[in-house]
This record gives sequence, structure tokens and C-alpha cells, in this order.
Amino acid sequence: MRIRSLWLAAVLAISVGPAAAQTPVGSLGEILEQSPAPDWQAVDPENTIYMDLPGGRVVIELASEYAPNHAANIRALARAHYWDGAAIVRAQENYVVQWGRDEGDATPVGAAQRSLPGEFDRARAGVAVTRLRDPDTYAREVGFSKGFPVAGQNGRTWLTHCYGMVGAGRGDAADSGSGAELYVVIGHAPRHLDRNVTLVGRVLQGMELLSVMPRGTGALGFYETPQERTIIRSVRLASELPENERVNLETLRTDSETFRTVIESRRTRREEWFLQPTGRINVCNVPLPVRVRN
Amino acid sequence: MRIRSLWLAAVLAISVGPAAAQTPVGSLGEILEQSPAPDWQAVDPENTIYMDLPGGRVVIELASEYAPNHAANIRALARAHYWDGAAIVRAQENYVVQWGRDEGDATPVGAAQRSLPGEFDRARAGVAVTRLRDPDTYAREVGFSKGFPVAGQNGRTWLTHCYGMVGAGRGDAADSGSGAELYVVIGHAPRHLDRNVTLVGRVLQGMELLSVMPRGTGALGFYETPQERTIIRSVRLASELPENERVNLETLRTDSETFRTVIESRRTRREEWFLQPTGRINVCNVPLPVRVRN
Repeated sequence: MRIRSLWLAAVLAISVGPAAAQTPVGSLGEILEQSPAPDWQAVDPENTIYMDLPGGRVVIELASEYAPNHAANIRALARAHYWDGAAIVRAQENYVVQWGRDEGDATPVGAAQRSLPGEFDRARAGVAVTRLRDPDTYAREVGFSKGFPVAGQNGRTWLTHCYGMVGAGRGDAADSGSGAELYVVIGHAPRHLDRNVTLVGRVLQGMELLSVMPRGTGALGFYETPQERTIIRSVRLASELPENERVNLETLRTDSETFRTVIESRRTRREEWFLQPTGRINVCNVPLPVRVRN
Repeated sequence: MRIRSLWLAAVLAISVGPAAAQTPVGSLGEILEQSPAPDWQAVDPENTIYMDLPGGRVVIELASEYAPNHAANIRALARAHYWDGAAIVRAQENYVVQWGRDEGDATPVGAAQRSLPGEFDRARAGVAVTRLRDPDTYAREVGFSKGFPVAGQNGRTWLTHCYGMVGAGRGDAADSGSGAELYVVIGHAPRHLDRNVTLVGRVLQGMELLSVMPRGTGALGFYETPQERTIIRSVRLASELPENERVNLETLRTDSETFRTVIESRRTRREEWFLQPTGRINVCNVPLPVRVRN
């Protein structure tokens, strides 16, 4: 089938040219297959949220080091089963899908706080970052820290709004969010939101369940009728489920040699299909590999 | 409803601070409302393609100046009704949705060519570009030319793979595409495809019909069974339809003062909700306004 062949070449590793010594040759799949086990890290069940939708499960890893208070609050909300029966309330084209409960809803929040100070950035000192060497539109430094895309300048570091990143909606006040209302990026990275909203994690699995939500026709993509909403069956902290009900994922360590190889292989695509490799990569174009643990 | 209020602030124009003299104050809607009529341009029906899906109409503007041969070929294919009964064959998460016919399909192509040399870039000389001043990961110059996002360096200019841009699939050979198989970007801009594939236009309306296509489970997001495909009812050149069946759109001229105001208003968001405006903008984050002509 020709249509298929138009793209299949892109995942095949082929020509070994003069730059081969510097540039990894091999598809992403091949690089990962050859990776040593210690380059992978099991995702902590205390940092893993399962959102079960009618269509399947979404797995989210919490960014506990960048947003410790929001992560703790989300854990408390999950333990209180706060989101069971809540809904996807918004789907805005090329922007975000958002879920939560309506204002004034009386669902108990358990041990969680109703609002929290924003965790927009943190001190850069002491944070290990695998840096990208290419320029970024929005920040002087971009890279990865413990599996998350980050940016930084002026002694601060923050998570970036790449596709699949999850954030905590807030009102005008910096301390008006809590993690009870969450959104996920479903379009080109809205980096202007960086440092304006607390990012709390990223989707590891099931992103395709969220990204295809019918776009809402109200302002900002909110659904105009209850019938348009998708009801959330449950949200659970992985550590609360028996082991046989968990999805045991591991992520490629972003401080590993394998990940550096992934970056270089994507900066300069050596597959035959690519006629003019860019030799550059944007922080939101670097794949962050996830696999099921054996 | 609190959930709604979390985001509504983002579209309201509010505080007039010290930087107001330089930075436009006002929402995108307000800026456009105040725009003079000559800042808008009717989309040429000879450059407008309607793809009618079961869910509605997708309107695509062809980039005739950057890809004249592909645009001509797509016009010929539309006139031959080549795509009537063709299908959406691929939906890859955070990447592209693609449509066309299977290899070896005998549907007549009318006056169209079966393959064309790639139109990956063109000479920069003589091309008017509204430049962005912020750095870009992939190119030394980025901006807009006649309504399309572009990049450039070393005397060349090319269209960029922003969300909603439409390209012509090809095989390994540079001259193996024709415009018969098209894809649209549905995720973070895959700029590594720039200059490797011929971009032929952008979606002006109906993007939300394509972006929600269920993701295919085959390699590269191809659907594995015919049942998963969405059948294309018809693809027509707007100029071929009677006037009362056309969608008469106009786009904001990217060489207009209003568009420059849009850029600045988005570089530095002055709505009260924004606590830390970035003062920067990426070429793929600038809105390219479209409206129905009165």
C-alpha cells in the first residue's frame, strides 16, 4: 500500500553516512531495544494517577519535585474519590482538554486543600537538567529533569507546557488553584502559560482518549450542555489499588545515555526518508519514552 | 461556574499598566473587531478546497505561492473528483491525520500528474515576510507571508509545519508526492518535516473535524481495518461550486497593522489572568484569524 509506504520509511534505520560517528543511526524503537535496563525507572505508584474513562484508562505521572504541594493535594483528592462521577468539561481545539466539577459543587475533598499557592517555578540550584543545545523561543535554557520537560533562566526552573503535560486550572489569583480542576495540553505547546499555571504532571498512557474529545462549542471550548460531557468513572492513586490492578510503567531516565542518544537521533534524522535533517530539536519534540514493565 | 471562570479571564482585556503604550491592550476578539476592512482579504475560490466529511466541511486554503505545482495538481485532482469516496486512512497521536487512496487504486486523476518534484522551499528574494523578533529553534528567520507561517535562512524561505498546516505525503524520493495523499498537523509542530515535505496549504475552518479522528492502532497511526476509516464525501474546488454553496471566508492580512497588533498582544499578554507574560512568541503560537465575509 503506497500510502503506508510514504511514511514507513521514517521509522526504518538505513544509511550510514559520514556523520554516522557523531549521530546515532537507528530508529527510536531500535535505540530503546538496545538500552540497558538501568536506563529505565519504574514510575512510583505514589506519583501515579489512573483516570478511568468510559473509553479506557489514562495514566498520569505527578511531578512531585516541581509541584510538591499540588501533587500531595491531588493524592488527597484521589484518596477521597473526589473525581468519581466528575466530567470532562472542556475541549478547546489546539489547546487543552479540562476536567473537574462545577463551582460550588459540594463533593467532599477529604484531606485536600480547597486552594493552594501556585508552584510556578523553583530554584534552579541543585536541580539536574539534561540540557538541549538548540535555541528556544521562550527561555534561555531548556531540557529535561527526571522525565519532565523543563525550562529555566535567572536562577529559576519550571515545567514547560508541552503536549500531554497536565496543569491545575486557577482563577485570576495566583493561589486560587488546587489541582481539583486539571487540564491537559492537546495542541501546539502553549508556552505562554509557563510560570502562569502550576503544571502537575504528564500523561504517560491514554493520551489518545483525551485528545479526541469532541471540541466544545462554548467560549474557550466549554461544553454547553451536560450531555456533551464525558463522565469520569474514577480517579485513583496507583498505590491504592491492588498490584494486579495496576499498570506498571517505566519511563526512560532523562539523565541516561540512552536518552541522550534519543535526543541526538531526533536532532539529526538519519532515516533515508529525511532529505534535509534539521540538526535541531525543540524541547516539546523530544519523545519521552514509556514502556510497560516486564 | 468556577471551572469556567478559571479561564474566562484569559479572554477579557483588563489592566492598563505602564507598558500599555507599547503593548496592545485588548483581547484578540476586540482587536479584530476594531480592525479596518482593508486589513482582511477574501480567500480566492481558486485557492480554496472544500473537503466534505460526514461530520461537516473542512476548508483548506492552498499555498499557491510556495507550492504552485502542487496547488495546480490539487486543483486538477479536485476537478476530477479524485477524492470522492476516498478516506481518512491515518490518525497518529500528536502528529498527523492523513487522507487519500490506497496504492494502485485506479481512480482517474484527470489532468493531474501522478507525481511531482518536491516544492520544499523557494528563493527568499522578493518575498515579503512579516518577521517575528523572537528566537526560533529551527531557523534563523520566522514570520508570515500572505497568511502562512514561514521560516527562512541562507537565502531560502519555506512554509512551517504548524498545527493545521496541510502537506503532501511522499515516498523516499523527493519527487514521489503529488498532492493526492494529504496530511494535516494535529499536534506540536513537527518542524523536522520542514523542507522535507511539500506543504500545500492550511485548514481555515473545520480543523476540529480532523483533529478528533480516533487514533489508528497500526504503525504510524494507520487504521488497520476499512471499518475504521472515515469516508470522504467529496472534495471540491470552491470556484467550481455555485456561489450560494460556498463558504466565503476572509483571512487577516499578515502584512497588516492589525496583524502586527495581534502578534504584540500575544507576545505580551496583558489580561489580568496572566501573572508573568512571556514577552515572546513562537511562530506556531500566533493566531491566524479567519472570519466569514459579510
